[in-house]
Amino acid sequence: MTTTTEPTVAFDTAPASYKHWQLDVQGDVAYLRLDVDESAGLVPGYELKMNSYDLGVDIELYDATQRLRFEHPGVRAVVLTSAKDRNFCAGANIRMLAQSSHPWKVNFCKFTNETRNGIEDATAHSGQTWIAAVNGTAAGGGYEMALACEQILLIDDNSSAVSLPEVPLLGVLPGTGGLTRVIDKRRVRKDRADVFATKAEGARGKQAVEWRLVDEVIPKRSWDETVAERAATAAALSTRPTDAQGIALPPLQREESADGIRYQHVEATFDREQGLVEITVHGPEGDVPDTVERVHELGAAFWPLAMTRELDDLILRLRANELELGTWIIKTKGAVEHALAFERVIEQYSGSAKSPGDWLVNEIRHYFKRTLKRLDVTSRSLIALIEPGSCFAGALLELALACDRQYMLDGLMEDGDEEGEPAQLVLSDSNFGTFPMSNGLSRLASRFYGDDDHVAKLRQETGRRIEGAEAMELGLVTDAPDDIDWEDEIRIMLEERASLSPDALTGMEANHRFVGPETMESRIFARLTAWQNWIFVRPNASGPEGALRRYGTGQKAEFDRRRV
Amino acid sequence: MTTTTEPTVAFDTAPASYKHWQLDVQGDVAYLRLDVDESAGLVPGYELKMNSYDLGVDIELYDATQRLRFEHPGVRAVVLTSAKDRNFCAGANIRMLAQSSHPWKVNFCKFTNETRNGIEDATAHSGQTWIAAVNGTAAGGGYEMALACEQILLIDDNSSAVSLPEVPLLGVLPGTGGLTRVIDKRRVRKDRADVFATKAEGARGKQAVEWRLVDEVIPKRSWDETVAERAATAAALSTRPTDAQGIALPPLQREESADGIRYQHVEATFDREQGLVEITVHGPEGDVPDTVERVHELGAAFWPLAMTRELDDLILRLRANELELGTWIIKTKGAVEHALAFERVIEQYSGSAKSPGDWLVNEIRHYFKRTLKRLDVTSRSLIALIEPGSCFAGALLELALACDRQYMLDGLMEDGDEEGEPAQLVLSDSNFGTFPMSNGLSRLASRFYGDDDHVAKLRQETGRRIEGAEAMELGLVTDAPDDIDWEDEIRIMLEERASLSPDALTGMEANHRFVGPETMESRIFARLTAWQNWIFVRPNASGPEGALRRYGTGQKAEFDRRRV
Repeated sequence: MTTTTEPTVAFDTAPASYKHWQLDVQGDVAYLRLDVDESAGLVPGYELKMNSYDLGVDIELYDATQRLRFEHPGVRAVVLTSAKDRNFCAGANIRMLAQSSHPWKVNFCKFTNETRNGIEDATAHSGQTWIAAVNGTAAGGGYEMALACEQILLIDDNSSAVSLPEVPLLGVLPGTGGLTRVIDKRRVRKDRADVFATKAEGARGKQAVEWRLVDEVIPKRSWDETVAERAATAAALSTRPTDAQGIALPPLQREESADGIRYQHVEATFDREQGLVEITVHGPEGDVPDTVERVHELGAAFWPLAMTRELDDLILRLRANELELGTWIIKTKGAVEHALAFERVIEQYSGSAKSPGDWLVNEIRHYFKRTLKRLDVTSRSLIALIEPGSCFAGALLELALACDRQYMLDGLMEDGDEEGEPAQLVLSDSNFGTFPMSNGLSRLASRFYGDDDHVAKLRQETGRRIEGAEAMELGLVTDAPDDIDWEDEIRIMLEERASLSPDALTGMEANHRFVGPETMESRIFARLTAWQNWIFVRPNASGPEGALRRYGTGQKAEFDRRRV
Repeated sequence: MTTTTEPTVAFDTAPASYKHWQLDVQGDVAYLRLDVDESAGLVPGYELKMNSYDLGVDIELYDATQRLRFEHPGVRAVVLTSAKDRNFCAGANIRMLAQSSHPWKVNFCKFTNETRNGIEDATAHSGQTWIAAVNGTAAGGGYEMALACEQILLIDDNSSAVSLPEVPLLGVLPGTGGLTRVIDKRRVRKDRADVFATKAEGARGKQAVEWRLVDEVIPKRSWDETVAERAATAAALSTRPTDAQGIALPPLQREESADGIRYQHVEATFDREQGLVEITVHGPEGDVPDTVERVHELGAAFWPLAMTRELDDLILRLRANELELGTWIIKTKGAVEHALAFERVIEQYSGSAKSPGDWLVNEIRHYFKRTLKRLDVTSRSLIALIEPGSCFAGALLELALACDRQYMLDGLMEDGDEEGEPAQLVLSDSNFGTFPMSNGLSRLASRFYGDDDHVAKLRQETGRRIEGAEAMELGLVTDAPDDIDWEDEIRIMLEERASLSPDALTGMEANHRFVGPETMESRIFARLTAWQNWIFVRPNASGPEGALRRYGTGQKAEFDRRRV
């Protein structure tokens, strides 16, 4: 089905090299204008007409959301709009979708979903309220981008509309959260949602407001002023400090080879034959900043931020480029006390319900939270290996808890060269709600779902070094073999994993990782995404006569009419 | 992929003609023993070895759950066990799955899921506690059957185990709620769930108890007595009356033709060219029973029960046999006051948190609730047409609210022959929680999710006849055209619906119908089922070299190793 070879994807960019967006900071309001360069698609074979997007456009959007949070702390409201006349955004480019392989489509949707969730996260936790100023037609993914904003303003020019034409035109779902946000966030009645999502032309004017599809329709003549007013109002309500100085996010330093990727604090070693990658996160070294001022001075060099940026980049690269590395082994290396000292800085200054805390520390906390959430929805088997010399403590312990399994060496390796300290892990306050999953629970509350007493008991154990046998007893690890069994047990486990159906593992892990409640965010990855994945592989969408392939050819799609 | 033609399915059966189950009522405990007849598969091409099941086995199980509730009200505990030595149940038959078409597999899973949810419903709402007495190996769907029970007892004979071998052996998910119930209901830790679901041999003995996969392991020598004791304990706690007389569920009377199915109170007319079926539910006629004694005398002839049985049967038949009738138009016909009078009987005697109510009326209420839930998960477009002469009132209004859209004629048909009463609908207390959806919300609370004020306002409107224009204002219908527009609007709407991709509609409706919270039950249909549907169409499972097709051939499956 794929007509072109899909390239290796890099996620590095910066405003100066954006091809598709204009980032325009005006005091406490930023205008982010979509201005897609038709001829600058990431993959050959399609033109990005009508402000439609591909992964390349979204990589820039993600970069902009990050820079707004870290480099522009003075920004208190973000206006998402279009630089093109009468055309806000036409959504994901259809020819791109039609020519893409199934993994590419799924990965593209996952990344765009994460970016839209990130926009909501900025509104909720960063005091940067996003407002969609829909100054032209917003179709499909274009409207879904607006849906991620806190407010949707629509220009009243007798033609601009919002729409979700995927079902009627393409035979697929609005898969970037559209169906879910319309009913869960915008609270559109299900029958109206049904009418809206089956009507290619969408809604505008009074009806769009009455159905809650947009918040306000604004006459063209007063458009600019009204948008500016709404942005000013949102900015005035922000908890951001007014005098904050941003920190720069310099390009990541990265060494790539055939066998892996190495950053300053994170490294990944590939074993292509076994289909696995070993990811090692190095703990912090050196002096712990003891004031917030020092954290600001360090900026992107502050270990928690530097490490998170590298890990984030690695996750994205492995997901996009290394489809056959099905198992990720996650390790840490470093001194437990350093890891704890650094994470105490985060815990202490990141703010709470009572106090906003330091804006930068707060940003780092939420960025690490979002990066952990990427792991939760990563369709790879995640295995934590907790060995002597590792530093799974507090925030870093979340990496292990995000994994499908945790193996911990009980005691020491007989012939090991570590300095005599057995493998340890340490719980801290960070493990009890600082980094919630998308289901709203901490990873420990998910792990011990329904057993609040045990979670309360674990809370009493914070700060202590817990070795293998005790970690087993406390339910923190899956197994804790001793040095006699360790090597064989791990080897067999990895071989067995590699022998299983990749699809079945993806489905199984997606079910096991989320227990209990679902939130709008988790529903987007569960109910919506799983259905979309199914639809993407069905001939009615992706077959040669399917709607996605035939769109724009003048030929009507031919459907297998059986309902499944 | 299908090697045999799939037959037309009928759902009628009765204990005397069971081929695969023994129903043995011993006082207040019933023993339901699985004893599959290998050679009595529903479709040619496979043998039901090792107490494995196909749709035919499950149709009998569903029948047994219904008869236990209606015909055996004295039963207070149900022991689900096997009549075969050392073999509880091997799950869904693999050859059957391998030879089945995608729609057959999906429909089979949906029905089996509903039956297991029904077992939990009997435990929760009928005072019939189900206990799985796992007297041999319970694999895959066999263990999932046990998971639907309130308690799982496992025999300790050094060989019997519980297992979910779908992922390692077949490359598909345990799709009948297994993954979800293990973590959500049994509260097995996700890493243990991961180990368990990737290990073909499963767990037994002490480990099975420690991991909470079963409640108790019982030595073989004391098996029968202990099972009987546990059943007696559960029975003693039941709220069922001790002196209740069951009512008989006689065979349904049904006329089938090429163009439809007609029951006493329900009829369905097919329009194969348009791909739609018009379902008319006739309201009650004649005298309303004014005592509970009279309801019991009427038994299966009591209109709410008779109608529900017919509607249930119709839904199942249409889902299994009429895949190309993609749109169901739902109508009612009858007198509003009769419908309300009958449903008041249900409302009045079905019990509450304070009082158990009448067992039979309570059963009827929950049966109608379950039948409505079947509509909620039916992958067909559901359109309610509310016309003069209809009786969408109270409980019957739930039929309309379950639909994707509701169209109501405003006023009368100019040339109509009805007796001058415009179309009406009536809210009653039944619309505010008597028949909750699987997300735990009433259909009105789902419809107006997040707008509790409006729901409270509607509560003030119960008992009044609400005509088209007002129903529009109250948000109870999607549109209320007058007689000039009615015919064209409905025709165009139905034609448009029929032109859309059946798969995209299925995915869209599954998302729109469930807003807000998810429960274990809704998660089974959302997260789990949607992933399973995806896996079922992937070559890694169902392709010629896939695990499902190669199982038992001696050849190993060949996997596309890319993670998606």
